[in-house]
Amino acid sequence: MGSTDPGGIHLDPIGWVRTDVPDEDVPRRRRDIVSRIELRPALAPALTGIDAYSHLFVIFWMHRAAAGGPLLSHPRGDPSLPATGVLASRGRNHPNPVGLAVVELLERAGYCLTVRRLDAYDGTPVIDIKPYDHYDVFTDLRLPAWLAVRPGN
Amino acid sequence: MGSTDPGGIHLDPIGWVRTDVPDEDVPRRRRDIVSRIELRPALAPALTGIDAYSHLFVIFWMHRAAAGGPLLSHPRGDPSLPATGVLASRGRNHPNPVGLAVVELLERAGYCLTVRRLDAYDGTPVIDIKPYDHYDVFTDLRLPAWLAVRPGN
Repeated sequence: MGSTDPGGIHLDPIGWVRTDVPDEDVPRRRRDIVSRIELRPALAPALTGIDAYSHLFVIFWMHRAAAGGPLLSHPRGDPSLPATGVLASRGRNHPNPVGLAVVELLERAGYCLTVRRLDAYDGTPVIDIKPYDHYDVFTDLRLPAWLAVRPGN
Repeated sequence: MGSTDPGGIHLDPIGWVRTDVPDEDVPRRRRDIVSRIELRPALAPALTGIDAYSHLFVIFWMHRAAAGGPLLSHPRGDPSLPATGVLASRGRNHPNPVGLAVVELLERAGYCLTVRRLDAYDGTPVIDIKPYDHYDVFTDLRLPAWLAVRPGN
């Protein structure tokens, strides 16, 4: 499905996110959102056995993110916080607007998955899905001081 | 940098992986591999503040993965294990061959990062880098039985 050429990387969505949650509510309600991921029907066999996992990574394409923004900004738009590079935060303004979420898998039916915690808008193209495994877990984390206090996360 | 059109998603690498480890040793030595990620020099400001994090996600493009393989296969090529969909395993044969690794950040210098645990070959294009945060950690995992015993992971 994907290909590389000298002009860059080309890929096709494997599916799309479907949710009734309005865009503006997605960031705030992230923990509770239940979404469907509808794969291309021909990819249904690729999901065989996926319901044995409790958690998945979903990699998606933030198709409505504005490209070409500044590479440095103040977290949460707060000038009292240190100017931070876009790759040093989880914002939507990365050079390639690829989203990544760890979600809970609630159900698989045919070519569709029902998941919780996917902070993606309705209609978002899905690039890849991967099982989340013990080797993805690191608990002794160091984080910047400005992340220590965060509103409503 | 990235764009969407009716024909799919187009993106350009933000950088490339550099390692002296031969390709065939990468899977086996994953935990110990130290690699450099060399971003495009113009993206150096995007790394400002990244050294405050201990761990990062690296999303990369497995440019040498063969496309168009079967959607179902036996894990590790072992016919005694249940046939499993490619999206239900972390193999290299996903419809879009996108790689995902949690790495330890050892050093940032200008537009280069030195990281440990990146299971990507020398020359691999890097699509995105994201800080790994507490909200990526889930410890009460359910996994398929065939993963419970795994050789040399």
